[in-house]
Formats: sequence, C-alpha cells, structure tokens
Amino acid sequence: MKQTLQTLKGFRDIFPEEKRQRDFVLNKVREVFNVFGFEPIETPTLEYADLLLGKYGAEAEKLVYTFEDRGGRKIGLRYDQTVPTARILAQYRYNLPKFFRRYQIQNVFRADKPQKGRYREFTHCDIDIFGAQSALADAEILACIYQVYKNIGFKQIQLKINDRQTLFSTLEKFATDKVSVASLIQSVDKLDKQKIETVVRELAAKGLDQKQAESTIAQIQQTQPSKELSNIINLAEKLGVASNSIQLTPTLARGLDYYTGMIFEVIIPEYGSGSCGGGGRYDNLINELGGVEIPAVGFALGFARTVEAAIKLGLIPEVKNSAQVLVTVFDKKTRNYSLQVTKKLRKSGVKTEIYPEFDNLGKQLKLANQKNIPWVIIAGSDEVSTNTVALKDMESGEQKSVSLGDLTKLIK
Amino acid sequence: MKQTLQTLKGFRDIFPEEKRQRDFVLNKVREVFNVFGFEPIETPTLEYADLLLGKYGAEAEKLVYTFEDRGGRKIGLRYDQTVPTARILAQYRYNLPKFFRRYQIQNVFRADKPQKGRYREFTHCDIDIFGAQSALADAEILACIYQVYKNIGFKQIQLKINDRQTLFSTLEKFATDKVSVASLIQSVDKLDKQKIETVVRELAAKGLDQKQAESTIAQIQQTQPSKELSNIINLAEKLGVASNSIQLTPTLARGLDYYTGMIFEVIIPEYGSGSCGGGGRYDNLINELGGVEIPAVGFALGFARTVEAAIKLGLIPEVKNSAQVLVTVFDKKTRNYSLQVTKKLRKSGVKTEIYPEFDNLGKQLKLANQKNIPWVIIAGSDEVSTNTVALKDMESGEQKSVSLGDLTKLIK
Repeated sequence: MKQTLQTLKGFRDIFPEEKRQRDFVLNKVREVFNVFGFEPIETPTLEYADLLLGKYGAEAEKLVYTFEDRGGRKIGLRYDQTVPTARILAQYRYNLPKFFRRYQIQNVFRADKPQKGRYREFTHCDIDIFGAQSALADAEILACIYQVYKNIGFKQIQLKINDRQTLFSTLEKFATDKVSVASLIQSVDKLDKQKIETVVRELAAKGLDQKQAESTIAQIQQTQPSKELSNIINLAEKLGVASNSIQLTPTLARGLDYYTGMIFEVIIPEYGSGSCGGGGRYDNLINELGGVEIPAVGFALGFARTVEAAIKLGLIPEVKNSAQVLVTVFDKKTRNYSLQVTKKLRKSGVKTEIYPEFDNLGKQLKLANQKNIPWVIIAGSDEVSTNTVALKDMESGEQKSVSLGDLTKLIK
Repeated sequence: MKQTLQTLKGFRDIFPEEKRQRDFVLNKVREVFNVFGFEPIETPTLEYADLLLGKYGAEAEKLVYTFEDRGGRKIGLRYDQTVPTARILAQYRYNLPKFFRRYQIQNVFRADKPQKGRYREFTHCDIDIFGAQSALADAEILACIYQVYKNIGFKQIQLKINDRQTLFSTLEKFATDKVSVASLIQSVDKLDKQKIETVVRELAAKGLDQKQAESTIAQIQQTQPSKELSNIINLAEKLGVASNSIQLTPTLARGLDYYTGMIFEVIIPEYGSGSCGGGGRYDNLINELGGVEIPAVGFALGFARTVEAAIKLGLIPEVKNSAQVLVTVFDKKTRNYSLQVTKKLRKSGVKTEIYPEFDNLGKQLKLANQKNIPWVIIAGSDEVSTNTVALKDMESGEQKSVSLGDLTKLIK
C-alpha cells in the first residue's frame, strides 16, 4: 500500500526532549492560573462551522478549517478558545457562576501559510474573566499574565498596553471617504516596527494627503491614556506588576474584530520584538453570539513562542533522559534479581528502565549512552550472590558496589 | 446571524469540576509512565488520510474522520495513537534510540454512533515499547499498566490475558469454507458476556454444524497458555503485578487487525465488566507501514472509563471550588488594602480570587457560596485601620479577626 510517511505541511511531531520542555512551561503556567482562581475547562476540537465563521474578520476567516462530515453537517476545527467559550457562556448562562474565571489550554488550528516557527496546529493558554466590566478585572488579567512570565523565570517582561476606544475615537476624525478608520488603524499599528516615513507613505498611498498623514501619526503618538486605562494600570501595579514593565503604546491596535476596551501584548525584550501573546476586553462578543450581555476580558498566551523564549534564555532545566537509571539484564539466572531491583527503585519513585533483552554489558552501556541515562545498575551473578549491585556513573565512568538497601538513597 | 449554540452530536464540553477530576487521574497516570522510563511525544491531530486508512479493519475504517483540505489533500483526524507513532518509527528510524519507550496522551476521534458515555472525541493514554521482541517487554507493559491503576487507587484490578497466536492456531482447524477463522474469533470473543448456547447458535447460523460449534468452544475454553505467555506472566509478577490480578482468558480476541502475540484488557470488577483499556503485541505493523521490522508491544488506556471508575469508587478527592479564598472589595478607599492582601496570599501559593467589583458584603458572600469557596476574607475600613482582616469560614459561618502576618499560615 502506498503510504505518506510524513506529517502534513504545517504540522509536526513533538519529540520527548521538547515535550518535557513544554511540560515544564505548562506546569508553570497552570500553577499561576490556579493561584489566581481560574478554573480549567475544555471544549471539543470540532464545532459547527457557523459558530466559527463571521467571528474573526474576513482575513482570519480564510484560515478556519471547515469541512463537511458524513452527516452533511458543516463543521470546523477550533480556531481559538474564545469563541467556543463564548458559546458555553451563552449556552449555559443559567448554570455558570457570576464572574466566571476560566482557563483553557488546548490546541487551535489555522490554515495559515506555514513558515519558520509557525504551524497550523499550536497550543494556546487562555484566561478570561466573564461578567465583570470593572477595571479590576482587566488588572487581574494583566497581573496574572505578568506573574505567569515571572514564574517561568523571565526577568524582563514588557506589557504593551492601549485602549482601543481611545485609539478609535482619535483616528475617527482623520478618516475620509477614501480611508476608513479601520484602514487608518491598520497602518498606524505598523509604527511599532516601521519608520514614521514608511507609514506616512502608506497612508498617502491610501489617499490621505501628506500633511494629514503626518498629523494623524503625531496626534496618535501623543495620545494620553484614558482615565480608565490609567486606573487599570494602577490596579495592576498594586496586584504585583512592576511599573517599569508597563509600556503605554498609543499605536497598538491588535485584532480589530471584537476588542472594545483595553488591549495589550506581552513582549520578552531579550527574546525579540514579536509578541508572545495578547488580549484585551471584548464586551460585545457574547451578546453577538448568544443574545446575552456578558462583558469579558482575557488573554491568549502563544505557547510555542513562550517556550522558545524560555529555551533561548536558558530558563528550562535540561533533561535529555527520561530514565535516571538503566538496570542491566544478562541471563535467565540473574534476571529475577534485575527485576527485583527495578521494582524496588520504581517503588521509591526513581525513573527506571530495564534492559528488555539478554545482552552483553557493552551493548547495555551503549543504550544508556544513547538515551543519556546517567546511572547504570549492573546486576550480574557476582552481585546476586552478594546481594549488591554495581552502580556505574555514566559521566565519570566510575563504578562502585552498593548494597540494595543504600541504592535508592544514593540515586536520589 | 444564525448560530448553532450547541456542541456537535457526540462531542461535549468539560467543565471545571470534571476537568479537575481528569487532571487528578492524568497526573497519576503520567507519574507511573515516567517512573517506568517512558518518554512523552505528541503527534499532529491531522494526518494524511492514506496513513490512517487500511489499518484498523473494515468496520473501524468507517469511523475514521476523513476530509479534503483546501489544497485538495485527503486528510484525517487521529483515530488512535499507534498508527501515527508507527509513522514516526518508520520516518525517523535512524534517529530514535533502540528500545524506544514512548507515552502519548492525546485525543482521538471516531465517527462512532454516539451513546451514553461514548463520545466521538476522547482521550487515550498510550505506552509502547518498540524494538524488543522479548517476553520482558510484554511484562513491562503489563506491570506499568497494573501500577497505573494501583496508583490511581484501585484495589481490585483484573488483567485478562490471552495469546492471539494460540487462539488463531486453535481455531484454524475449525474454520470451513463458510466460516473463516476471523469470523470464528469474532463469535468466540463474545463468550465473555454471552451464554455458551447463544454463541453456539451464532456459530450455527454462520454455517457450522451444532456439534462442531460446541466442540470449538470447548476446545478454546480448555486451551492452555503458551510457554511464551506463561513466561510473560511470570515476569510481570516479578515486576509487581499481583498474581490474583491475572486472569488467563483463552476466548479473549481483541482487535484482530494488527495484534500478533499477547493481548490483554484491564477490568475493574467493582466498576463493571467492560474493559477500561487494552493492548498487546503487534510485530508487523511498523513493517507494513514503513518497510522496517520493529517489533512492538503496548497499551491504550481508555481515559474516560478509567476516570468514571475512579469517581464511582470514590478515589478522587472532591474539589468543587477553584479558589480557596475570596477577598472582598467594598469601595475605593479600602480597595488597595484588598489588593495587597490578595497579592500576599497568592505569593504564598494560596489560590485566591478577588471580587472584581464594589459590592455589599451579602453579594460577595453569595458569590463565595455559589463558587464553593471555603474562606472569605473581609477587608473593610475597620480592618484597614487595624491592619487585620476578618476571616470567615463559609461552612460554619464563624468569623474571626486575623493579623496579616498570621493569615497565610491559618489558611494553609
């Protein structure tokens, strides 16, 4: 049979070393989510397509994976975790607690052009608070995310913050028949990475006159934070966010489609200028979905970029081996002893692999080397007769005789 | 816009209480997988359809979710974790260690008829050892799975075991033009749940004469375990499996399609007679896939049934609340104090929720009740002035004044 022995374009396997790195970061993330009182939920990978469509804007919509199933239903793969949770909010509105705080850590799917470090299936870690319109709820999200990055071990954390409402009303007066507010915002959003002249040229190309384009940018850059935004920042600081981490960014635009208030992104400067995730307030989405007004504020953490940043900055302890110990097996006569040692080690929590066949010592040491297992326990007939084992340190090559009683202590 | 505010048939949301239960079991499972030296990997949710088709048998094949993507590629959703791992084994054969032991905990998708407790997306926890043909590898799988169930807390664990080779060769001589070995096996497999007469009738209906049918069954039931199987069981016991947990079941057939040696299922008798998962040896699959001979033995744990069994037997500590503490917020004047207390509690690891708005005490206590939060910290102007808080036990209703310094200790 012809087989396609490869992953689909834009998809990939995750091997043990990376999976352990991811699990390390995941535990750090989950720990903080829990300590902030967020509760875990999961939603299905597949949803009705009409739930997913019309939510993310025209450009993004093209990236939603949709299909027809055997029953002729239009279905789609999870594109983000906000819309499915919005469905839950609408569907179960009478069963959920007030100020529902949930976290969700699952994979999302986007039929994006694959490029370096960007895949079509990737993990998002979301937190959201539903039902509160207060600045304190916004501040809780900022504080939680800040703490997540602290907990992973990042020293420098930058939160770029803006108020979409302010941005919108500032730009509104510069909109013309030719250039809509949305189009202005798109250009202004680029000021972060491009020179002013470049953005001016872009605005001019769109149909703004040169003077107008320059004054639009000048005005945006001078925008003072709204009272609401200042309040949020003040509260976030009280909850533990270092003030030098907060960077008011009047040009930040971020996902136009459903944000209605504060918007923000997390940057790890030592890693790069791209955002590791972002979020904001979206007070209308649940209403649009389910006809029930539930204000909401939240954040989606880009897991792959965050892990990559943590690796680059050396924040993840290197664990190249799964087992701490390999127990040798030589022959039928000594095998029971090897099994007994293996059982004992595992019982006391030592990660133990047993060589699954009869083989000579050389081959067994080779396996330990290949798997980066730091200790080998040699249990041959000499050891059986003295009720000991030979414990070999694979790095130094040293080997010593150890009684069964002392073995666990020594390895731990 | 018309919205479908529900999950697809056969899919479901997982709410916090259940998610916490699942996470509890998941940690127990992962702990044992690690201690046995298995390494974690992940494969994509989507694969080329031709990888998934032709692997699971005609009946199962109908349940594979396949689609065409926008690029015209035939793709499919993960149906199990064995075939994608077999792809990895073939694709990366020169990079993987000998005796590769991997675990994989991801969701699989089957377009099955939805029924009570059976969904179209569910979690599997797999372990496999690749590259070893020895009885010891089989025994390792048995011992690991036994230990997983022990670790979750089950007292009675039954491992039904058989050798597919023995079953096959015993039945071969009863096959006729009308009734194939595969068809015989299918019927015999039912002896577990149905009366002998019923199975005899079924075999007769298939075209076997009554006498032959009876003697087929009699012979199967008397089959003695092969030497290989006895050896496996002996080694598994040495690795910690209680001998009264092992139940030789000569009629066990289990997934005909790729098993080649030992097959087994896990039963939790106090929960029910259905299997909580199963596995076996499959020495040809990797070869069929990638033209490279790699023997394999493994197990897939049915996560939903295992969790359900653990809940039914009271093995999972009940955690109805996410936060341990709710901190009140009354007004602008006292808010900073509430924030300070919140920050302090979280810093010492106490799961803390802060009421996100200004409200009267009654409303805030109501929230704590609704969310089953056991402690409320009341921080009003009296408390601010004395640098204390009132700590309210929501179960007893008792309330006492506590200094900030003692607070964390008291709650922990």
